[in-house]
Amino acid sequence: MIETDILIIGAGPTGLFAVFEAGLLKLKCHIIDALPQPGGQLAELYPKKPIFDIPGFPEVLAGDLVNNLMEQIKQFQPGFTLGERAETIDKLDDGSFIVTSDKGTKHKAKAIAIAGGLGSFEPRKPLIAGIENFEDKGVNYFVKNPEQFRNKRVLIAGGGDSALDWSIFLANVASEVTLIHRRNEFRGALDSVEKVQELKSLGKIRLVTPGEAVALGGDGHLQWVDIDKEGATERIETDYFIPLFGLSPKLGPIADWGLEIEKNAIKVDNSLDYQTNIPGIYAIGDVNTYPGKLKLILCGFHEATLMCQSVYQRLNPGKKYVLKYTTVSGVDGFDGSRKEAEKAVVKAIE
Amino acid sequence: MIETDILIIGAGPTGLFAVFEAGLLKLKCHIIDALPQPGGQLAELYPKKPIFDIPGFPEVLAGDLVNNLMEQIKQFQPGFTLGERAETIDKLDDGSFIVTSDKGTKHKAKAIAIAGGLGSFEPRKPLIAGIENFEDKGVNYFVKNPEQFRNKRVLIAGGGDSALDWSIFLANVASEVTLIHRRNEFRGALDSVEKVQELKSLGKIRLVTPGEAVALGGDGHLQWVDIDKEGATERIETDYFIPLFGLSPKLGPIADWGLEIEKNAIKVDNSLDYQTNIPGIYAIGDVNTYPGKLKLILCGFHEATLMCQSVYQRLNPGKKYVLKYTTVSGVDGFDGSRKEAEKAVVKAIE
Repeated sequence: MIETDILIIGAGPTGLFAVFEAGLLKLKCHIIDALPQPGGQLAELYPKKPIFDIPGFPEVLAGDLVNNLMEQIKQFQPGFTLGERAETIDKLDDGSFIVTSDKGTKHKAKAIAIAGGLGSFEPRKPLIAGIENFEDKGVNYFVKNPEQFRNKRVLIAGGGDSALDWSIFLANVASEVTLIHRRNEFRGALDSVEKVQELKSLGKIRLVTPGEAVALGGDGHLQWVDIDKEGATERIETDYFIPLFGLSPKLGPIADWGLEIEKNAIKVDNSLDYQTNIPGIYAIGDVNTYPGKLKLILCGFHEATLMCQSVYQRLNPGKKYVLKYTTVSGVDGFDGSRKEAEKAVVKAIE
Repeated sequence: MIETDILIIGAGPTGLFAVFEAGLLKLKCHIIDALPQPGGQLAELYPKKPIFDIPGFPEVLAGDLVNNLMEQIKQFQPGFTLGERAETIDKLDDGSFIVTSDKGTKHKAKAIAIAGGLGSFEPRKPLIAGIENFEDKGVNYFVKNPEQFRNKRVLIAGGGDSALDWSIFLANVASEVTLIHRRNEFRGALDSVEKVQELKSLGKIRLVTPGEAVALGGDGHLQWVDIDKEGATERIETDYFIPLFGLSPKLGPIADWGLEIEKNAIKVDNSLDYQTNIPGIYAIGDVNTYPGKLKLILCGFHEATLMCQSVYQRLNPGKKYVLKYTTVSGVDGFDGSRKEAEKAVVKAIE
């Protein structure tokens, strides 16, 4: 059982920054996210694209913003449960909660902050009979650990950035990379398309277009995938099949937690602390809604901050909290580190 | 008469960022601030100190954050009235406002955003009879334009960073720099104290400690200051006297505008748009108050953003606004510039 002060559901920018504000209040955080890495959409969907409306950054690549936030929170040593989706919640008599993931991991927390963005990103799966039997047995919808594919035969399907980028990356890892797409037209960054072109010309990527996976099989583990090529079928022997057809956000099991939901978002009290209708459960960032709500990262930062203050009050009833400025008070990490402004000296001049 | 959509009172980080969010909505901004440069406290009080709680910046110097914000908003071409304090406000029949500064500059705006921080920074003035007669005639409480002092005799008073730093800077500009302080103990960054020590040893700064200015005079323009040195009086002939005794924030004339004030802050509706009790006047950042208010820069950014949306609705009643993401839609500057993410290509691979 993982125990923490605040369990944050969602490792996007809002969830990550909450760790920092909680840390300033000496509250520990653990984050659970369905994606295999922190950063939410920013890391998964558009890491190399610029954002122009983060205050203080005339331009920042989404992936760099995630890296910056990870650096900013590291001294508060957040825990992570990645690649698992928050599934069920139970409230204990002492007011704390237990959240269990789809893989059975249990998390006990004094407060819950749902920072789920547009929902947990579920891969769009191809409609192939029996594909679910090979999930994690040769069929992967994400590349979590590229080393898994070293010296293996890999079949990638898709026509967008993910399919292009992983084909390029795995061309130097896997023994064989085949890329199939239902038409010979790829949509992505120019340099990615050009790189795939180059690797194809060098014989490092085999391209099958138009091609669509229609059947698959194997003895326990995936062994083959049948490709429909405008009526003709080709069987490709492969160790892995990675369909990268995009992700679609779903509020998922959280929708059944008894929270007030409006237009696929969780209603919160924006007049105070972004708490939901269930005391102790907060919703921050794109996942929440209130009058005048804007789904902007910078708003999530503010909501996360007020949420942390509210949790602090909840866990320390009656204790007076005096806001400290980091410039004046510094930042004391849970790892023993300390950041602080250079102190002024008081000194005579002779 | 300066005309604009939103008149922002206060050029601190919240006021500056409001220009960006207004710009995305095609609203023009003009900023008025009592200080001689943008940035508020960050630029005036601690430009070289780090801030650790700006989201996405593990550490950023206050002055750099101001520079970044100025860079971020420049394509929206904000106007500035600097070194003037917003003094009076009049509401016109068409719902717009006219704000007049202490120097008589008039600004007409469709909405007002008070982003005044802790108030306008008023210099602490030494208690010397008749000093007010020499203000701007040899007595300066700020250094707005260092060139003003080229080849002139300058007397600086104070024992903190400002007195040290301007003594250092003006040692290479003025013909003569004298630094007086009521005790021989300076409080500031170590390298500033050491640099003053070095310049004193080189004869480029004359140090008079303990020394306190007790009288001054001149014929129209300042000509002399009398210094009390533990009972003995020395008359120093000088062209300029610059007392740098710190700034003290005052809500000032805004307190008389009919706004609801609580504990020296302006009450706003945090459940919607940070509007005050006077429709069309908003208060954002440290100057406002509401249940759960935290005086943090990151909260000001959020408040500024929701304020801009509200002004947009106010000026475009009934018009449906669809939130655009800068990553997707780019940023079109009022100067004709355009920032945008690199477009995806759609391309065949041969």
